[in-house]
Amino acid sequence: MPLICSRSLLVGLAAIVCLPGVASAQTPSPEQLAAINAGRTPPAYPAPYEPTEVDAIRATMARVLAYLEHASPIRVVDAVTGAEVSDLANLPERVRFDRAIFSNVSYEWGVTYAGMLHAAEVTGDSRYRDYVATRLEAIARVAAHMKANPPPPVEGGNPFRRLGLMRSVLEPHSLDDAGAMAAGMIKSVRAGIHADLLRPWIDNYLTWISEGQFRLADGTLARNRPLPDALWLDDLYMSVPALAQMGALTGERRYFDDACRQILQFAERMFVPSRGLFMHGWIGGMDVHPEFFWGRANGWAIVATTELMSVLPEDHPDRAAVLAIYRAHVRGLANTQSRAGLWHQLLDRNDSYLETSASAMFVYSIARGINRGWLDVLAHGPAVSAGWNAVAQKVNAEGQVGGVCVGTGMGFDPLFYYHRPVSVYAAHGYGPLLLAGAEMIELRRGKGARAAVSDGAVQFAPSPSRF
Amino acid sequence: MPLICSRSLLVGLAAIVCLPGVASAQTPSPEQLAAINAGRTPPAYPAPYEPTEVDAIRATMARVLAYLEHASPIRVVDAVTGAEVSDLANLPERVRFDRAIFSNVSYEWGVTYAGMLHAAEVTGDSRYRDYVATRLEAIARVAAHMKANPPPPVEGGNPFRRLGLMRSVLEPHSLDDAGAMAAGMIKSVRAGIHADLLRPWIDNYLTWISEGQFRLADGTLARNRPLPDALWLDDLYMSVPALAQMGALTGERRYFDDACRQILQFAERMFVPSRGLFMHGWIGGMDVHPEFFWGRANGWAIVATTELMSVLPEDHPDRAAVLAIYRAHVRGLANTQSRAGLWHQLLDRNDSYLETSASAMFVYSIARGINRGWLDVLAHGPAVSAGWNAVAQKVNAEGQVGGVCVGTGMGFDPLFYYHRPVSVYAAHGYGPLLLAGAEMIELRRGKGARAAVSDGAVQFAPSPSRF
Amino acid sequence: MPLICSRSLLVGLAAIVCLPGVASAQTPSPEQLAAINAGRTPPAYPAPYEPTEVDAIRATMARVLAYLEHASPIRVVDAVTGAEVSDLANLPERVRFDRAIFSNVSYEWGVTYAGMLHAAEVTGDSRYRDYVATRLEAIARVAAHMKANPPPPVEGGNPFRRLGLMRSVLEPHSLDDAGAMAAGMIKSVRAGIHADLLRPWIDNYLTWISEGQFRLADGTLARNRPLPDALWLDDLYMSVPALAQMGALTGERRYFDDACRQILQFAERMFVPSRGLFMHGWIGGMDVHPEFFWGRANGWAIVATTELMSVLPEDHPDRAAVLAIYRAHVRGLANTQSRAGLWHQLLDRNDSYLETSASAMFVYSIARGINRGWLDVLAHGPAVSAGWNAVAQKVNAEGQVGGVCVGTGMGFDPLFYYHRPVSVYAAHGYGPLLLAGAEMIELRRGKGARAAVSDGAVQFAPSPSRF
Repeated sequence: MPLICSRSLLVGLAAIVCLPGVASAQTPSPEQLAAINAGRTPPAYPAPYEPTEVDAIRATMARVLAYLEHASPIRVVDAVTGAEVSDLANLPERVRFDRAIFSNVSYEWGVTYAGMLHAAEVTGDSRYRDYVATRLEAIARVAAHMKANPPPPVEGGNPFRRLGLMRSVLEPHSLDDAGAMAAGMIKSVRAGIHADLLRPWIDNYLTWISEGQFRLADGTLARNRPLPDALWLDDLYMSVPALAQMGALTGERRYFDDACRQILQFAERMFVPSRGLFMHGWIGGMDVHPEFFWGRANGWAIVATTELMSVLPEDHPDRAAVLAIYRAHVRGLANTQSRAGLWHQLLDRNDSYLETSASAMFVYSIARGINRGWLDVLAHGPAVSAGWNAVAQKVNAEGQVGGVCVGTGMGFDPLFYYHRPVSVYAAHGYGPLLLAGAEMIELRRGKGARAAVSDGAVQFAPSPSRF
Repeated sequence: MPLICSRSLLVGLAAIVCLPGVASAQTPSPEQLAAINAGRTPPAYPAPYEPTEVDAIRATMARVLAYLEHASPIRVVDAVTGAEVSDLANLPERVRFDRAIFSNVSYEWGVTYAGMLHAAEVTGDSRYRDYVATRLEAIARVAAHMKANPPPPVEGGNPFRRLGLMRSVLEPHSLDDAGAMAAGMIKSVRAGIHADLLRPWIDNYLTWISEGQFRLADGTLARNRPLPDALWLDDLYMSVPALAQMGALTGERRYFDDACRQILQFAERMFVPSRGLFMHGWIGGMDVHPEFFWGRANGWAIVATTELMSVLPEDHPDRAAVLAIYRAHVRGLANTQSRAGLWHQLLDRNDSYLETSASAMFVYSIARGINRGWLDVLAHGPAVSAGWNAVAQKVNAEGQVGGVCVGTGMGFDPLFYYHRPVSVYAAHGYGPLLLAGAEMIELRRGKGARAAVSDGAVQFAPSPSRF
Repeated sequence: MPLICSRSLLVGLAAIVCLPGVASAQTPSPEQLAAINAGRTPPAYPAPYEPTEVDAIRATMARVLAYLEHASPIRVVDAVTGAEVSDLANLPERVRFDRAIFSNVSYEWGVTYAGMLHAAEVTGDSRYRDYVATRLEAIARVAAHMKANPPPPVEGGNPFRRLGLMRSVLEPHSLDDAGAMAAGMIKSVRAGIHADLLRPWIDNYLTWISEGQFRLADGTLARNRPLPDALWLDDLYMSVPALAQMGALTGERRYFDDACRQILQFAERMFVPSRGLFMHGWIGGMDVHPEFFWGRANGWAIVATTELMSVLPEDHPDRAAVLAIYRAHVRGLANTQSRAGLWHQLLDRNDSYLETSASAMFVYSIARGINRGWLDVLAHGPAVSAGWNAVAQKVNAEGQVGGVCVGTGMGFDPLFYYHRPVSVYAAHGYGPLLLAGAEMIELRRGKGARAAVSDGAVQFAPSPSRF
């Protein structure tokens, strides 16, 4: 318990207060001693500790935006001549997208579109919206053109390759193809972007999710990879946000019902209450499951739950059950945040590396829970502030997001998860970074407006008393 | 399972038995091989492993005493002239204490007085008693003088500053002001030191604790800092020892009742049974609490419980419940002791630093539990022996206690706790060091008299059999 | 979730995908980017990740065999002249064994014999069988000779020393003397090796286990070391395999009954269900036990359970209860496997060193559980494969097994376990290495024949679908 003192920090203290094991021979002055015992000495934090200001958050996000504008341009080319096509309303017979560092058609980019739209809404900066609008327009137009002008089968070739990248839009056959892109497109339509162009492809995706994808007997979305009847926690994001958004777009209850069912039925099998965390994989008929609490998969789960909660009608009968899972999950996440503010690749293993994409997803989800009143700002504000500060440090000067685990299958041994490589070219970090930043801006403008360091610690409300 | 052999350790073994990963090319002799497999090779312990002898404990404590005699002299000066006042029975109108490295009036020094008195009792060395007697006499005389000759208000100044350091004695307004100093004073009185001089200030402190301090509706001592209705685990020490000692001094049951109530009602809210540890903070109305198992706060809790158990009448109806909490807490502490014998800043986080003040408080509390028969010496003796050895290593040649976390508020994010600075000038380590040392001397003289390394491990009783 | 792609890994990727925190300035090609996001970049595993081929396992085992042939020769010498005795059917009056790096008569070597016999059975390599046959023949013949020609008492000497190493065979007086050697001998007899020579000594050992060893009132095998009524988890191996093998050899039910009783009654006292692990020691009358989840003791427990399950009649009434403990233990072990594939000295403490003997015992026991159908190969195959690969890395070019904790008593403080030395001369690693290797060969020939890296992770069955 520190003394209370309003004087500013004293010069020279840092030389006297040490990291463990280092003793200083120099005797401090009485003022310095008072400050030491009062805890008013500056700790050596690994990232800024003060709650970040809105402008700093905006600047981080803008750096990412600028990098992505450069690293994922949308360019349609004539597949025969290779010439760039400028008029999307007048396409040559065979077209394709020029390659870029990041593909504009992928589940990762579905998240990026969601992040850009949230950034546009919160910052009012039209570049975020333009980023989405230009890309989704091109995708929708090229898809429509390819549907009307189907490329011929490649003799002896893989039929899946015939359509190139656009295969996943025209003929989705997995949740990875459908869910994240669908959610991004529906959010665009709801934001007034290209409703007519996008709707056919949204419907196409949703048909796959609702009717095409393999499910267990009880309706739980599943895969037969790597083993029969496999639940991938990742699939919560690859389905629930799209279903929830489709419910919001159409008002049809069945989408909400299916979305809730996925959260509840995944949780029943994969949530470990004593830890407050989800296992990555679950296999039908496997009675003992190796429990790997992989960070990013927990990120997909909590973001999916958050997205559902954000649009689920207040009177939906499953709302309380979904909220209970959300809160239990947040509790588990709060208890595993690392000494650096980030979370570990394996959440419960402090000898696994710190992973950015999961951390950003947790920041987004917890910040939104505070903003929407599902969580107590006083309890969770400081942790989410530290989380954002640490995530923001992973964005380099160029706007690349570092420390992101690359694409990851389902493993049954610890080595697999511990040793996944990281790369700034792993596309999974960008959308979550934008989502987290935008939600943090909302937090700092609203319930977190008065966040400050008080008595050495970040507090989200001024103390009512000095004692 | 080692072979049994009475021969002494063989020369050269250390070169053959290695830390993990290091293989030696040299083939050992048959005798060396037998010793290796028998586990009679000397491990590279980070601190002495053999149970420390009483003389070594005394020497460590004496070094601390000598340092504190130098670093916290009590000197009354004429506040007008600055001249030292030698006759405390004849004070000039305006007096103050000269500044020292450590203030003689503070909650930390309340603990130091308790440690000095325990050291005096156990070692019979009168310097420990003198340390307390001279300081408490001066404090009591100056307080009485200032009460009789109140300093004038400072024009436009902070009314709190008018009395300087003595404000907390004359007008306590927090548990930090009252509890630890009161406990130290009552222990002095009970040891025959300055009963008449101290009693008014004891009563003044107790009135604050019993009547002045903010409480929740159920009588639990609380603060409105950093948030409304906040329970600080630290407050168990800032109240319970004083209440318990006052019960012992006066025989009034109400003090014991209140002390027990605090332990039980804090535990109900803040003890996490699955871990056997207490959270640092609890906030009224916060449904999910970030759970930070801060070492020192757990130290305050277990020492407070220990102090209460030490004087609580055997027939008190809450005794069994308090003892159950004590034992459950010891179990949690035993399971989190580090590879070095110390405990971590965050008890359940082995990537947080090793913290001395908490470790010393655990050593004191567990050693006393053994000495008083609340714990099994065979189960807990070896751990507390390792704990003392590690704590003693943190006392440098000058008598300073290193590795002590500075004053610490209540935080809601992990960074705050992980990165608190440490300093030999943090006053929190000195009292616990003396308490631990004194209790360890009692242990080594009594139930731990036969402690020794047997078959490689510290045992607190000789083995009844070789098999 | 990675893309699916059959192309091989691209050159240069490793320079672009980094360990956390390291960003590369170089922009990768589109092919490289696709590979990064698909997770087809080679992680920096600390040991080979691909499931090991049978030939590689054989080679590792053969290296160990060659080392042990050299390091533990069996040589009978005339105790008077020191001359080597070549005709074991015609021994001089006083004989002894020449010293070697490893003693051929010890509990550790009981395990080595079991490992050699299993290796012989699985590989068909007669050297493993010869290793056992020559040594056990010599031991049995020398024991019979010494019984017929008892050495005279040594004047004033320790009566225990009169028989030298052979005392444990002729006059066993502990489970360490009897259990592991008995199990090795019975396995030899059951494999057709020297039945007539070995049987008297087997009976001698079993009489000690069944009738001689101290037990608690309920029949649980116990010691009075280091404290009265002490259960050593290690004793499960020092009794249960011998009892189980004797049941198999004689068909007498009482041996199975006693073996099951030991597993169940140890588990009742020492298994901690919330962790799925066993404490090392348990002391009668101690209500709170310090919980040290020592790796090797857990190894003894799971191997003992495995050995019992391997021969326990299908209709034995305790079979289901023993299997339940086995499975709960495997679950706890799976959840504590380290980032390296090995397990830690203290299983739940990732700041304790990686220990080879325990790891090898876990690999053996889990692999056998898969092979015998007690465990799901899909769930546990990848972990056991990683475990073997890591264990095999600890065998050096000379065939020595490194990283093995030396002989270890029972401790009640963490320092004791954390700081046990390791040595290639600790005899405890060799038997487990051979057991693990042999069982892994069975796994790779049977249920694990199709194990392969698929989509980045080891899988023990081909994926039924690409989606």
